[in-house]
Amino acid sequence: MSKKLKTGIIGLGRIGQIHLSNLLYHTPGAEVVIASDVSATAHEAAKKAGISATTSAGEVIVHPEVEAVIICAPTPQHVPYTIAAAEAKKHIFCEKPLDVTVADIRSAQKAVADNGVKLMLGFNRRFDPNFLRVRSLVKTGSIGDPHILRITSRDPAPPPLEYVKVSGGIFLDMAIHDFDMARYITGSEVKDVFVKGNALIDPRIKEYGDIDTAVIVLGFENGAVGVIDNSRKAVYGYDQRLEVFGSKGMAKAENNTENNVVQYNGESGISALPLHFFLERYENAYRTCMQTFVDCVLENKPSPVDAHDGLMATAIGIAAGISLREKRTVAIEEVL
Amino acid sequence: MSKKLKTGIIGLGRIGQIHLSNLLYHTPGAEVVIASDVSATAHEAAKKAGISATTSAGEVIVHPEVEAVIICAPTPQHVPYTIAAAEAKKHIFCEKPLDVTVADIRSAQKAVADNGVKLMLGFNRRFDPNFLRVRSLVKTGSIGDPHILRITSRDPAPPPLEYVKVSGGIFLDMAIHDFDMARYITGSEVKDVFVKGNALIDPRIKEYGDIDTAVIVLGFENGAVGVIDNSRKAVYGYDQRLEVFGSKGMAKAENNTENNVVQYNGESGISALPLHFFLERYENAYRTCMQTFVDCVLENKPSPVDAHDGLMATAIGIAAGISLREKRTVAIEEVL
Amino acid sequence: MSKKLKTGIIGLGRIGQIHLSNLLYHTPGAEVVIASDVSATAHEAAKKAGISATTSAGEVIVHPEVEAVIICAPTPQHVPYTIAAAEAKKHIFCEKPLDVTVADIRSAQKAVADNGVKLMLGFNRRFDPNFLRVRSLVKTGSIGDPHILRITSRDPAPPPLEYVKVSGGIFLDMAIHDFDMARYITGSEVKDVFVKGNALIDPRIKEYGDIDTAVIVLGFENGAVGVIDNSRKAVYGYDQRLEVFGSKGMAKAENNTENNVVQYNGESGISALPLHFFLERYENAYRTCMQTFVDCVLENKPSPVDAHDGLMATAIGIAAGISLREKRTVAIEEVL
Amino acid sequence: MSKKLKTGIIGLGRIGQIHLSNLLYHTPGAEVVIASDVSATAHEAAKKAGISATTSAGEVIVHPEVEAVIICAPTPQHVPYTIAAAEAKKHIFCEKPLDVTVADIRSAQKAVADNGVKLMLGFNRRFDPNFLRVRSLVKTGSIGDPHILRITSRDPAPPPLEYVKVSGGIFLDMAIHDFDMARYITGSEVKDVFVKGNALIDPRIKEYGDIDTAVIVLGFENGAVGVIDNSRKAVYGYDQRLEVFGSKGMAKAENNTENNVVQYNGESGISALPLHFFLERYENAYRTCMQTFVDCVLENKPSPVDAHDGLMATAIGIAAGISLREKRTVAIEEVL
Repeated sequence: MSKKLKTGIIGLGRIGQIHLSNLLYHTPGAEVVIASDVSATAHEAAKKAGISATTSAGEVIVHPEVEAVIICAPTPQHVPYTIAAAEAKKHIFCEKPLDVTVADIRSAQKAVADNGVKLMLGFNRRFDPNFLRVRSLVKTGSIGDPHILRITSRDPAPPPLEYVKVSGGIFLDMAIHDFDMARYITGSEVKDVFVKGNALIDPRIKEYGDIDTAVIVLGFENGAVGVIDNSRKAVYGYDQRLEVFGSKGMAKAENNTENNVVQYNGESGISALPLHFFLERYENAYRTCMQTFVDCVLENKPSPVDAHDGLMATAIGIAAGISLREKRTVAIEEVL
Repeated sequence: MSKKLKTGIIGLGRIGQIHLSNLLYHTPGAEVVIASDVSATAHEAAKKAGISATTSAGEVIVHPEVEAVIICAPTPQHVPYTIAAAEAKKHIFCEKPLDVTVADIRSAQKAVADNGVKLMLGFNRRFDPNFLRVRSLVKTGSIGDPHILRITSRDPAPPPLEYVKVSGGIFLDMAIHDFDMARYITGSEVKDVFVKGNALIDPRIKEYGDIDTAVIVLGFENGAVGVIDNSRKAVYGYDQRLEVFGSKGMAKAENNTENNVVQYNGESGISALPLHFFLERYENAYRTCMQTFVDCVLENKPSPVDAHDGLMATAIGIAAGISLREKRTVAIEEVL
Repeated sequence: MSKKLKTGIIGLGRIGQIHLSNLLYHTPGAEVVIASDVSATAHEAAKKAGISATTSAGEVIVHPEVEAVIICAPTPQHVPYTIAAAEAKKHIFCEKPLDVTVADIRSAQKAVADNGVKLMLGFNRRFDPNFLRVRSLVKTGSIGDPHILRITSRDPAPPPLEYVKVSGGIFLDMAIHDFDMARYITGSEVKDVFVKGNALIDPRIKEYGDIDTAVIVLGFENGAVGVIDNSRKAVYGYDQRLEVFGSKGMAKAENNTENNVVQYNGESGISALPLHFFLERYENAYRTCMQTFVDCVLENKPSPVDAHDGLMATAIGIAAGISLREKRTVAIEEVL
Repeated sequence: MSKKLKTGIIGLGRIGQIHLSNLLYHTPGAEVVIASDVSATAHEAAKKAGISATTSAGEVIVHPEVEAVIICAPTPQHVPYTIAAAEAKKHIFCEKPLDVTVADIRSAQKAVADNGVKLMLGFNRRFDPNFLRVRSLVKTGSIGDPHILRITSRDPAPPPLEYVKVSGGIFLDMAIHDFDMARYITGSEVKDVFVKGNALIDPRIKEYGDIDTAVIVLGFENGAVGVIDNSRKAVYGYDQRLEVFGSKGMAKAENNTENNVVQYNGESGISALPLHFFLERYENAYRTCMQTFVDCVLENKPSPVDAHDGLMATAIGIAAGISLREKRTVAIEEVL
């Protein structure tokens, strides 16, 4: 197939610019027609690449050449833009989370289905070569029936308190990636969730009803048990590992490091830290993610990360929040 | 100090013979005077080493030359023998668990205190070189305040169902080592416990009210959170790892393997499995453990693993059982 | 500095296209004005990127806008184009080796010096993050005085025999990268060389006076000893490792792998192979290499890999060939 | 087989005491009858174990109960004691090297053959679990035809100069283990040797015609090439690694470390050093080695390390010395 997919980008913040650059330079089947951002100063990147820029998201959505929109706006606008794009019969790539409420996600889901367009969510970690390999080992049965899933997901530094206030909390802002990963790796739905956590890094986070250190236990439909540990501050960098243990064996994915050199002196061996943060760690994953979206539209394949995936990740996040407040196991169906 | 500690061993089963061999060949400050076992056929090992053997534990305890008894009898006899030995003014090394009830442990604790003897419990894993190193990093502050503790503890194969029936359950039989390790590594008491588990390996285990796959969440007094994952059957061998994450960094201990050779062919890299089971993995730990007991008596130092340690490990195990049955977080003080 | 360096590329083969893509998408300070290739069918890549294409290298060199030429033509044309570009007052990036004779390299060196232009050679491996780290540890004195250098450099598969015939032999075609690396890592000149090798993979290679398996011993001016082992065929992929051992310690760089997942089943641990070949392994190194060239011109800094570096790498290669034929240690000054 | 092998030990220095302890405590089929040492103060260890001690090696050899002698005396006495023991029809375990001259080794070889006794040499490294695994992979054909062998063998600290003077030089004192390992791992004879080395750690070593840093190239009969790198001083500990590369893949054995904990702080990952020296690294190998000797006598199996092995290791060492002095490749047959 030689046809190219014509895309428009909504939102040119940090993540929008990553997608722009990947669409331009690393996604053979894609073209970028237009990009929007509310701030005109963000248009620089678009101009540099020879692309029209606008302050109106609507203009991107209705642009006659645009076949697919890439939604990188703030979370509250994800659902409105998704619905508008679906109604304009445009395919949609939307950043995570689709939304923080079940009802709004279902509206978007309906709009997508009614209009027969494709929706893919930006759960980029699914496309990390390490996690892809673990998923593949589970899928082909090499691990047997999954019994225990362990995810470690720790950020190098907490976001500003200003951001924490509006972030939706650690579960919908940070752990939501891990909830998606849990479903993706095991291939099983999560039935219930239990949280034990605390504000150990910055006690002020508690004032917003949030925590910065969490251990989250997931019960899966197939009887397996999952555990996620999150921290907002790992001084040694971005810690992203996982392990799945099953009846036939185990597979684990480790961090990627800045280099693999080990130095030995008279005291110890010395090695490099994990890659600092998500831009470095998931650089390739972002590219594969965008390539996958473009391929799925061009070749009319089902979206590998659809609205249901968005719904479930958000639902687990909401249930985790209830578990934290009410100190009990919460069934996912309570919030669906 | 050149004096030798004269010991007597009660119980010459698998673990009793390990301690016998270590006392004879790897513990410079120790002598073995006498050993007992109810089965006369178990006396072979004692005879081979030129040591008196008897079928009476009491004979060992009251033997005039014996200064310290090594209790390797079945669990229900730990407390009675401990009390008898304490009253006979003998120092005591006792296998874990000290007992499965709080009341009985307290009786033993009282007898030990009243008679001014030393009691050390056989939590051998504390003496594993990897775990010793992690403990030392925590103690010296290299990790900062501990925030998250992760223990993986998986056996290569489940015990016979006959044994499961009388074992006291996965928490008091298997995870009790991990409960002790959690307190040891963090240097903090456990406040509450939550369990999520299942019988995924052998459903018949459920009939005994037990499980074979568990994720256990521990709340520590200092606010840290711990998580233990247990399985009765890891097909790749004995999986014994842990990691502590804190404000200044992280330390993790991996499995020891049969060898460290990596082979590469056209398909993959191939490496050895973890050491098969506890005899291989903890061979050195058992030696250091016994040496430590002998040193602590000869040099009149406090026992590094005392009755309080035994009490707390058992209490967490009892609380974990309640959590499993009642599907809720259980405070340790509920069972104390 | 906001000015951009205007470049022209000579040769659009495999390596030429890599440099083109990196100049276009990954080198902020560069522009590509024109590219040449003798085969018009190779112009597709240039056209796709909106760049003029020509069949005449001379046209690139004399193009009034071109400030720097990127020479990716076959080796015999490296020196003629370098001299022509120098005389046209253009800065030069030239692929390795600069040439296979000392005399011709010296002509190029003279032309570059006489015309006050910059010349940088494409020893891309110097820019690999692992090797950069080792170099930095040596340079800062962390390793102390280097005593032993070990380089492993093995290709996944031998080139076609047709290519072997004209390649200049394993030393000038393949090991030349390792000769440069040896000088780079140690920061010391090579004084003499000794080779022990054989044709173990394909005996027909012997007919061309060449070998496919080599151990090369280097004597350094500072007394250190280096050893390189080369093979034309490692079935497990591209094997690129090195280690430097000195008075204060050791540092070693390992292979990068396709992913870092380790799977354990009942038989063994299973891990991924090294990245397949140089395009994958040195993807980042190629980018940093080109960025470094552009920076060195724009900021008028000395070339980090100059004609002297090219001369020495070739001289060691020539001496290695003599050592193989004459079965003796050969001093580098014999060939200079 | 329940019969025990009655042994006598000649020499109770460091290595003699290791063998004594292993024969007593870790070699089920062995008994120790008597031990000799010229210094009566060394008899302490024997007395502690309840064994007769003497200052006369001859007394051990002719002791009527002794079936096998363990020769741990200084090298010059190896051949005389071996011949005396052979003539007394005693089986012999002798420390390495058997001797430093070809003629004397051949005398010993003849005496052993003429008297129909077994001789096993103490090349303990052959019994290291890592090297055993590599050997097994080569033997079963998993690596294919060996092409390149790499051995790294570095001591933590040089011996006293007094010792260097009488040691026979780095090749016969230190590298002889590596020469044996080279033949053992590849299963092929060494045809020629080339040495490049220097005195980089202590220039005074040169005064004795010796070096402290060496790269040794071995040509094997099957066309493979081997390379050994030796240093008398690795500040990070005892560095003992090897790698074999062949037509079907590669296998490498790494160092064993004090523990496997990795600590991460804001600066780097920190890991433990290799085990300090041979007593720690080869603790298990020494045990397996002695067990193998005892088994080979009791079960009348051929010695796995016989006089021919001793001859070849010494011959390579002698040839290496000539190569160092004459700066050329030396064929092993020159010295046989």
